[in-house]
Amino acid sequence: MAYETIKYEVAEQILTITLNRPDKLNAFNARMQAELIDAFDAADKDDNVRAIIVTGAGRGFCAGADLSSGADTFDRDARRGPVKRFADGKVDYSDPQVRDGGGQVTLRIFKCLKPVIAAVNGPAVGIGVTMQLAMDIRIASEAARFGFVFSQRGIVPEAASSWFLPRIVGISQALEWCYSGRVFPAQEALAGRLVSRVVPPDDLLPTARALAREFCAKTAPVSVALIRQMMWRMMGADDPMEAHKVDSRGIYARGRSDDVKEGVVSFLEKRPAQFKNKVSSDMPDYFPWWNEREYK
Amino acid sequence: MAYETIKYEVAEQILTITLNRPDKLNAFNARMQAELIDAFDAADKDDNVRAIIVTGAGRGFCAGADLSSGADTFDRDARRGPVKRFADGKVDYSDPQVRDGGGQVTLRIFKCLKPVIAAVNGPAVGIGVTMQLAMDIRIASEAARFGFVFSQRGIVPEAASSWFLPRIVGISQALEWCYSGRVFPAQEALAGRLVSRVVPPDDLLPTARALAREFCAKTAPVSVALIRQMMWRMMGADDPMEAHKVDSRGIYARGRSDDVKEGVVSFLEKRPAQFKNKVSSDMPDYFPWWNEREYK
Amino acid sequence: MAYETIKYEVAEQILTITLNRPDKLNAFNARMQAELIDAFDAADKDDNVRAIIVTGAGRGFCAGADLSSGADTFDRDARRGPVKRFADGKVDYSDPQVRDGGGQVTLRIFKCLKPVIAAVNGPAVGIGVTMQLAMDIRIASEAARFGFVFSQRGIVPEAASSWFLPRIVGISQALEWCYSGRVFPAQEALAGRLVSRVVPPDDLLPTARALAREFCAKTAPVSVALIRQMMWRMMGADDPMEAHKVDSRGIYARGRSDDVKEGVVSFLEKRPAQFKNKVSSDMPDYFPWWNEREYK
Repeated sequence: MAYETIKYEVAEQILTITLNRPDKLNAFNARMQAELIDAFDAADKDDNVRAIIVTGAGRGFCAGADLSSGADTFDRDARRGPVKRFADGKVDYSDPQVRDGGGQVTLRIFKCLKPVIAAVNGPAVGIGVTMQLAMDIRIASEAARFGFVFSQRGIVPEAASSWFLPRIVGISQALEWCYSGRVFPAQEALAGRLVSRVVPPDDLLPTARALAREFCAKTAPVSVALIRQMMWRMMGADDPMEAHKVDSRGIYARGRSDDVKEGVVSFLEKRPAQFKNKVSSDMPDYFPWWNEREYK
Repeated sequence: MAYETIKYEVAEQILTITLNRPDKLNAFNARMQAELIDAFDAADKDDNVRAIIVTGAGRGFCAGADLSSGADTFDRDARRGPVKRFADGKVDYSDPQVRDGGGQVTLRIFKCLKPVIAAVNGPAVGIGVTMQLAMDIRIASEAARFGFVFSQRGIVPEAASSWFLPRIVGISQALEWCYSGRVFPAQEALAGRLVSRVVPPDDLLPTARALAREFCAKTAPVSVALIRQMMWRMMGADDPMEAHKVDSRGIYARGRSDDVKEGVVSFLEKRPAQFKNKVSSDMPDYFPWWNEREYK
Repeated sequence: MAYETIKYEVAEQILTITLNRPDKLNAFNARMQAELIDAFDAADKDDNVRAIIVTGAGRGFCAGADLSSGADTFDRDARRGPVKRFADGKVDYSDPQVRDGGGQVTLRIFKCLKPVIAAVNGPAVGIGVTMQLAMDIRIASEAARFGFVFSQRGIVPEAASSWFLPRIVGISQALEWCYSGRVFPAQEALAGRLVSRVVPPDDLLPTARALAREFCAKTAPVSVALIRQMMWRMMGADDPMEAHKVDSRGIYARGRSDDVKEGVVSFLEKRPAQFKNKVSSDMPDYFPWWNEREYK
């Protein structure tokens, strides 16, 4: 896929995805949706990608949905033709055409096998901030601003943010930001635990890259991939026994791997480990341990 | 319903519910339970109510259950006659007479369609604090004190606080407060994230009202109502796909609404939006998307 | 059971479990696993144990899995003989021999009926830190260090930490620590909310004991036992109605108890309460209200 709305650049095993419509403050559209999903597909398949940074070109991160269609922006029937309806005229919400585009992006990020860091360089509003919630860690420039502006447009939060946001910042903070719809600065995002740290603009990408490098430097790629899915999936588990089942499989299956033998022996020998197992070919036989939930 | 234990006052589209037994530090009794539930019912039906503040008359917020019945206070059989029992003498816990009164209040607040702010003016103990947990945001006066005192009375936490409290303050803080049963000051509540801010006593209601006004000023009432239920309900969802399903319905149904067209156009025209959809009549056809869980 | 790897000491109704292989930095092995489970079994049965402190002998808390078997450390087949396999050669993961040892410890702690405080005196790495996550509160000495080092050994986090850790510190912090595998100091653990407080080394056990005493001093043992299970179990409940059901049973059953009558009357008489109900004999008839999840 040739990208028109994003840049996809790999260096030092770190993929940087740059939202790249700087003249539109990187506003989100259907093309960007498709390209982001494609980029995460490519990243998961490429063993040379060990971590992912998402940032924006120019002075914004992402200004939200592209509003150039004006009043019809969110009117699916007007823009793409009518969705399916039942005989009685009611909408068939199971029609995939009904699906929220932002949510298709965050659900794709949710199942990613590499660490994902948002490097928020400037304004991030609407889908511009909700897309970040399925990323693992958010680092903000002092120039960043955030807004869950949905209430001020008459619409609702999307991109599965009602699942992600209260789990990240707590229900009270989530509701305060979403009720008001206000745009707020990086320091408020830090105080509210939406971002992990705030740095001067020039330090943003270096900080994100240093963190990404730390995630790759001494670690086994298959372990990191399993960690990402174990932690995110268990956020929805109703009992720690569910984690114990998956852990037990992991300790057994990985425990016999060459990676673990190398990990233990290198530690005892006080030398760097050389991990050889690859995400593309060496995920354990019990992976994935879940059935992906279907849209309906 | 003529209220005897609370005041119900609407001004500037903000309902203030005042617990109003000041000579008893607003101790909670069966009458207050019924009146609170009735007040939230009325608020949800009244489009002139855009946000709700709950506070206490006099120097207390709520001193907890009214203990004037002494040793019989929590003895249902002694006070209201025996609950249903099976032939073998075991209690039939599905008897609605067994239901915890505080929980009936918090479950009613849970399904409210308007933002709810607790303005905690003074001591809030037992049900006086657990009733606040289903409210969205807690603001405390410097004179507020809190106590999950159940362990010191030999009883258990109620009002569904075992569900709400660890989600708001984390399991460690929840347990520390509930194990000890100690009464603690506003600053400890702030440090432990039970309250969002602490203000001087005279600033309490102005601060709560300013926040309530922010939730109403530029926002669409139907969006705010949906946000409240989306965020709270998804706290219990096991997979972000559940949010994506509801989001997709929301983006589709609201996206075609006059509110959203006005929201986008007014934004582009840099003028205030005039939202016309009402909570009483214009909730989307997929609402509610859940089946209310039954007591049994 | 005669303990070889831990010490079990009760004083002032507080049990102190000390990991006791100081020459190995209290490294975890199969014997320690069995002894810890036995110790929690004993503590739950002993009404003279009102709270539990877990700490380490010597300069470490627990250095993680004992690596003295080198490359075979995590190879179950090599160390204990082959696990069950299906006819096609695939592992039968339901074989209890596959079960992660650390998870058996944390699941045992999860169902404990007494408050559990970790007093982290020194390095706590791998299972040395994940075992703490099912404890209620962690207090760290300034000499404590923590490391979720699994990614650096090629293995995966265990002890059901993928369930516990994101619920305690948030998903972003959990992933950052687990991706990197870095060892970090007590102050970082405090900032990330892994521990509740950091104290000078000499203050560690006194601080833990003061907290434990506060949990016992004025409280009813049966209330404390119910609180522990209510809070932890409701962390996995999908709807506050589930808490309301259990609360209602608790308020009814405990409300008629001698403990509650004493709790209310002593409060009204402004004298200390004398609670007589025991965890060993007086848990209410609806307890336990859940079916323990099985390994499979």
